[in-house]
Amino acid sequence: MPYIKIDVTREGVTKEQKKALIKGVTDLITDVLNKDPQLTHVVIQEHDLDNWGFGGEQVSELRAKGITADKK
Amino acid sequence: MPYIKIDVTREGVTKEQKKALIKGVTDLITDVLNKDPQLTHVVIQEHDLDNWGFGGEQVSELRAKGITADKK
Amino acid sequence: MPYIKIDVTREGVTKEQKKALIKGVTDLITDVLNKDPQLTHVVIQEHDLDNWGFGGEQVSELRAKGITADKK
Amino acid sequence: MPYIKIDVTREGVTKEQKKALIKGVTDLITDVLNKDPQLTHVVIQEHDLDNWGFGGEQVSELRAKGITADKK
Amino acid sequence: MPYIKIDVTREGVTKEQKKALIKGVTDLITDVLNKDPQLTHVVIQEHDLDNWGFGGEQVSELRAKGITADKK
Amino acid sequence: MPYIKIDVTREGVTKEQKKALIKGVTDLITDVLNKDPQLTHVVIQEHDLDNWGFGGEQVSELRAKGITADKK
Repeated sequence: MPYIKIDVTREGVTKEQKKALIKGVTDLITDVLNKDPQLTHVVIQEHDLDNWGFGGEQVSELRAKGITADKK
Repeated sequence: MPYIKIDVTREGVTKEQKKALIKGVTDLITDVLNKDPQLTHVVIQEHDLDNWGFGGEQVSELRAKGITADKK
Repeated sequence: MPYIKIDVTREGVTKEQKKALIKGVTDLITDVLNKDPQLTHVVIQEHDLDNWGFGGEQVSELRAKGITADKK
Repeated sequence: MPYIKIDVTREGVTKEQKKALIKGVTDLITDVLNKDPQLTHVVIQEHDLDNWGFGGEQVSELRAKGITADKK
Repeated sequence: MPYIKIDVTREGVTKEQKKALIKGVTDLITDVLNKDPQLTHVVIQEHDLDNWGFGGEQVSELRAKGITADKK
Repeated sequence: MPYIKIDVTREGVTKEQKKALIKGVTDLITDVLNKDPQLTHVVIQEHDLDNWGFGGEQVSELRAKGITADKK
């Protein structure tokens, strides 16, 4: 019965990336918890950059300063 | 003080259906828990079909194959 | 594919009341949205009275003053 | 590691107001819990007026009757 | 900035399984979205069997009937 | 109608700190958005250290290594 919610910033996540997230999370849950994938739901929620804050600053402001969340 | 969140796929839920969900859930909470309806909030959140997965597959893909979530 | 989360204060909700909430919400979703109940998940989350606030006050404090959330 | 989610109705919240909410919540968490702000995330989610209900009524209906959520 | 919430029934999930879920989800997000893992938070929430419903029935009742969520 | 959810690790948050968070968030929402505090609900949810991950590691493991989330 797992339900997994992924909250991310809306920065061009493609349909293929969403597909990979849904497949990957479901496989992980099945492998680790031995759950029937037919009972696993995954929801991805994208948020505008003005609506997410980190360290007290809007992500839209951080991006304007060139600060990304990319893996180094 | 109940707060109820309803997450559904965005597939043409009408204003009237949303109204029925809000009324129905609030009445249910009032009946079962004896809560003041003025303290009950209901929020409906719709999600794009690419953003919901079930059984490891995107709902958009399931719908393209003719698989629905309709009651049989 | 609906997922419904019910957040309430932890004030002695019984197993029977939880059963009635789960049955009632699932039936409502089935009736209003015509969804297969096998795809509907309902989760009830109870919160300690120190952890819920309303009007800027902890519910534990409100209850100590005799203020309830009961239906009038 | 706090994560704060603010759910509000979509009624013209400005970028500046969102900025003030993010800054204010992060400062509060830092002051009260002594948490490193770099580990605090704040997400604001706006909901259409048809999708929020209160006292069993859609907020869109309440607003049409002139009932607001403004501070008196 | 991703935040991932995993809701599961409380049925003996071990510390090692939780560790595997946290590591697995974080790696997936890093691989698929190229996000800095230092900005990725994963939270696992376990729910009592009386508090989760599926198909209109409490999971505690389903388990009493011998119905599991195990992978077939 | 705002609803604010604060997710934190369970590390000895006191009743007084919870009270300060509830009061502080409600005041902030009232000041910034001009909302009636009687319509603002704040919920604090504490999570066990095994259930929260950050950078791919369980917080319980991070704490065992002496890594805290304290403000520097």
